[in-house]
Amino acid sequence: MKDEFIEQWGLFEVSWEGPNEGNPFIDVSLKAIFKNANREVEVKGFYAGEGQYTIRFMPDQTGEWSFQTESNLGTLNHLKGKFQCIKAGEDNHGPVIVSGKTHFSYSDGKPYYPFGTTAYVWNYQKEEIQEQTYDSLKSGPFNKIRMCVFPKHYDYNLQEPGLFPFVGSLEEGFDFSRFDTRFFDNLEEQIARLEELNIEVDLILFHPYDRWGFKNMGIEVDQRYLTYIIARLASFRNIWWSLANEYDLIENRSMAEWDDLFKFIQKEDPSQHLRSIHNWHRPDNRSNTHWYDHSKPWVTHASIQHPDTSMVMELLALYEKPVIYDECRYEGNINHGWGNLTAERMVQCFWEGVSQGGYVTHGETFMNPNEIIWWSHGGKLYGESPDRIAFLRSIIEDGPVKGLKPFNFEWTVFAGKTGEEYLLAYFGDSRPSSKVLPFSENERYKIEIIDTWEMTISRLVGEFSGGSTINLPSKPYIALRAIQI
Amino acid sequence: MKDEFIEQWGLFEVSWEGPNEGNPFIDVSLKAIFKNANREVEVKGFYAGEGQYTIRFMPDQTGEWSFQTESNLGTLNHLKGKFQCIKAGEDNHGPVIVSGKTHFSYSDGKPYYPFGTTAYVWNYQKEEIQEQTYDSLKSGPFNKIRMCVFPKHYDYNLQEPGLFPFVGSLEEGFDFSRFDTRFFDNLEEQIARLEELNIEVDLILFHPYDRWGFKNMGIEVDQRYLTYIIARLASFRNIWWSLANEYDLIENRSMAEWDDLFKFIQKEDPSQHLRSIHNWHRPDNRSNTHWYDHSKPWVTHASIQHPDTSMVMELLALYEKPVIYDECRYEGNINHGWGNLTAERMVQCFWEGVSQGGYVTHGETFMNPNEIIWWSHGGKLYGESPDRIAFLRSIIEDGPVKGLKPFNFEWTVFAGKTGEEYLLAYFGDSRPSSKVLPFSENERYKIEIIDTWEMTISRLVGEFSGGSTINLPSKPYIALRAIQI
Repeated sequence: MKDEFIEQWGLFEVSWEGPNEGNPFIDVSLKAIFKNANREVEVKGFYAGEGQYTIRFMPDQTGEWSFQTESNLGTLNHLKGKFQCIKAGEDNHGPVIVSGKTHFSYSDGKPYYPFGTTAYVWNYQKEEIQEQTYDSLKSGPFNKIRMCVFPKHYDYNLQEPGLFPFVGSLEEGFDFSRFDTRFFDNLEEQIARLEELNIEVDLILFHPYDRWGFKNMGIEVDQRYLTYIIARLASFRNIWWSLANEYDLIENRSMAEWDDLFKFIQKEDPSQHLRSIHNWHRPDNRSNTHWYDHSKPWVTHASIQHPDTSMVMELLALYEKPVIYDECRYEGNINHGWGNLTAERMVQCFWEGVSQGGYVTHGETFMNPNEIIWWSHGGKLYGESPDRIAFLRSIIEDGPVKGLKPFNFEWTVFAGKTGEEYLLAYFGDSRPSSKVLPFSENERYKIEIIDTWEMTISRLVGEFSGGSTINLPSKPYIALRAIQI
Repeated sequence: MKDEFIEQWGLFEVSWEGPNEGNPFIDVSLKAIFKNANREVEVKGFYAGEGQYTIRFMPDQTGEWSFQTESNLGTLNHLKGKFQCIKAGEDNHGPVIVSGKTHFSYSDGKPYYPFGTTAYVWNYQKEEIQEQTYDSLKSGPFNKIRMCVFPKHYDYNLQEPGLFPFVGSLEEGFDFSRFDTRFFDNLEEQIARLEELNIEVDLILFHPYDRWGFKNMGIEVDQRYLTYIIARLASFRNIWWSLANEYDLIENRSMAEWDDLFKFIQKEDPSQHLRSIHNWHRPDNRSNTHWYDHSKPWVTHASIQHPDTSMVMELLALYEKPVIYDECRYEGNINHGWGNLTAERMVQCFWEGVSQGGYVTHGETFMNPNEIIWWSHGGKLYGESPDRIAFLRSIIEDGPVKGLKPFNFEWTVFAGKTGEEYLLAYFGDSRPSSKVLPFSENERYKIEIIDTWEMTISRLVGEFSGGSTINLPSKPYIALRAIQI
C-alpha cells in the first residue's frame, strides 16, 4: 500500500464494503483511532449507502497519521491504514477558530472577519437556482452562509422537497432510523463547492419551521442524527455548527436539553468546529424570556438575533466571546416587519456592529413574481447593500490584524480602537459637523473620512494630533478612520 | 366703581400703591379671596416694583366675581372689589387640560394636540433675535414652546444676560430675597405675545445649566421663587409648569424634595396649570437610574426625554396619562450626539410617537456662523422637519376628536386606532410592499396612503374590508390611514 498524501485540514476518507441488509445505520458500529506521534483522535464512521462504510477525518497536524478501526462487525474490525499529512496548499487556511478572545482567524493564523449572509434552504432549490446562488456568492462580499439541514416550512417556502435527511415522505411518514444517503451526498457536494468559494457554512442543525416532524424528534433520534452529521461533515474545514435557529420557538425542549445537545456535539466532533445557537426572543422590556447564555463553556461565539446592533459593546463585555448579529432583519420589502429594511439601514447595521468589533450577517427579502427570495431560496441578489458590505469588508481587512476593541467614543457613535494606533468611528444616521479626535495629544494621525454609502475614502490634508477637532461633512452614513503616523 | 368685564380665562389684575422702602418682597404679605357664588379661590399677590402691589387672577367661570384682600399692611388689608366674568372671545379657549385620560383639550373642550418646539433661552436674546423667534413661531407648525425662567450656561450659550430673575450680577452676587421686576415684566410680555400666537408656554422652572447659583437655592428660596412666579404668571392661560429640565443632573436634591416642590406648586397655583418634570437619564440596561415616576398624583402628564419614540405605547400603559416626548434629540449637525439628527429622523420620531397616541417635541441645532441656534436662542428655523410636522399636525387635527389609542399592529409598525372607526399606521423606515388591514371583516374602509416625507395623501381606488391586503409603495416613511365608511 503506497503512501497517501493529505493536506493539513484536508479531508481523508476511507471506505470498505459491508452488509447492506438489515439496518446498517443502527446495526453496525464503526469508529477508528487516528494516531499522530503520541496523539490519538477517535473518529466515528458512517454508513454511506450501497454497502459502503466510510470513515472521514480532517488531520490538523502534518506528519504521519495511522489508524485502526473498531467495529461490532468482524470484517470492519481492526482494519488499519495510514497517510502522510502534508503542508496545506495556498488556498487552505484550515477551519475558522476563535482568536484574540472576541475575533476569529483561520487555523493557520490568517485573520477571518465573518461577513455572512443567510439563505436558509437554498440547498433544497432546483439546480438552476442553486447555480445562481453559487454565482451570486462568487461575485458577492460574503464569506459565510447560514443554511439548514432540514427543509423549511414558512411563508414563501411551502413547496415539498424531493429528498429529505431521513427516508420517507410527508404522506407516508419518515423512518427516523434510516438516513437518506442521497440527501447527504448532495449536501456534501454543496458544502464542498462553498469551500471552493472560501465560504464558511454555518450549518443550522435544528429549526422550528417544520411540518414534517424534524424539529424535535426526541433526544435519542436527535443524538443519532447529530452523530451521523458529525461523522459525515466534521471533516469539511468550512463547517460551523449552529445548534438551532430561533431555538426558543421549538416547543417542549428544555434549556437543559439544549445544553446536553451542545455538550454532545462538543464530545462527538473530533475537529471542534465553532458552535453557537440563535435566538428569536429578545431580552428587553417587552419580553420575559432571555437569550441562551452564550457564556456557557461549550459556546464558541454568540449568534445573536436583535434589530439593535448598537449593543455589540455590551454583549462583548458580557460574553467575552466573538459576537455575530446573525440576524438584524433583512434588506427588502416583504410584509413582515423583519423583512423590509432599506439598504441604508442594512448597511448601517453592518457598520454599527463591525465598528464596535462585532460582526453582522446579511439577508435579503425582496418580493419577486417567482417568490424566489434570497433569504430562503438563494438565487439572485437584488439589493443595494452587498456592494457596501464589500466596501466595509475591504476596510476591515485593511485594518489592524488583531481586530477592533469596542471604544466608548460617545453614545451616538459606534467605534472601535486598537490602543493608540487605529480608530474606526461610525456616525450612523447622525450628521455631526465635527468631532474631537479621542487620542492622547502626543500622538499624530492620518485621518480619512469614509462615506459608507457612496463608498468613498477621502484623506484630510495634513496630520492631526489627539484632541484635534476634525471637521465632518454634516451628512449621514459617514465614518472616520484614524491611523497613527 | 363701575363694573369691569373680564373674559372667562382672561387676566384680571388690580394694583395698589404701597411702601417701596425696606424689602417689599419679604416684608409685605398680600392675598385675596375671590368669590363666585359660593366658591372661594385664594390668590396671592406680589410686589411689582415701583411701590406697586398687584393681584392677578384668571377666572374660570362666567358671572360675578368679588374679592377681598388680606395683608399684614393696614393699607392693603380688607380692600374689596369685583368684576363681571363674561363668555370667552373666539380665540380664547382657556388653559389646556388633560382630556380622555391620555390626551389634551383646551378648557372649553376644543381638542389640543401638542406640537411643541424647544428654544430654552430665546427670551434672553437681543430684541432682533426675539422678533425673528416670534416670526418663526407665527409661520411654523408649533403650538407649544419649552423655555426657561433662568439663564442657561451651556455650549454655544455662554454670554452674560443683562437681566436676571433676581437682583444682582455674577460678579457681585445675587440677592435671593429680591426679584428683579424688570425681568418679570419682560417675561410677561413674552408670554403674552406667545398667547397671541396660540402658543402654550411650557415654562421650565429649574434646570442644571447654571453658573450663577440658581439651580438649587435651598428649599426656602426655591419656594419663595415659586410663589412669586405663580402669583405673577398663573393668570396667563397659556402657562404649563415644567418643574425642571433634566432634573436628574441637579445635584443635592432628593426625590422627596422634588415631590415636595411639585406639591407646593399644586397647592399654590389657583388655576391648576399642567405640571410635569423632564429627565436626562434613561431607564435602560446602560443605566441604573430611573425616570421620575410620572404616575405620582401631582404629575399631569409625562414629559419624557428618550431617543426611542417607539416606547409610547408602553409609557401610556404605565402612566395612564398623556405622554409627550419633550426631547428625542434635535434636527441639526452640531458635534453633540443629541444634536445632529437628519430631518428624516426628526420627522420619523414625530410620526412614531404621534401615531401611537403620544406627542413629540421638536428642536433644531444647526451650526451657524453667529452661533444663534434655535434650540437655545430661537431666531430662524433652517431645518426640513417643520413643514413635515405641520403636515402631520393637519392630519391629526383632521382625525377623530377623542384621540388615538395605541394599537399593537405589528412590532415594526407604529399605530393608533379608535375602535373600528379609524386607523393611523406608520411604517417608519421600513418599506413593506403590503399589509393586512387590521379590522373586523364586516366593516368597510376608505384607505389613504400618506407619504410623510413628500407630504402627499393618495386615496386607494375602491373600498376595503377589514382583513384586506393593502398594497404599499415599498418605500420608507409611508403611513396608512383607514377611515370607516
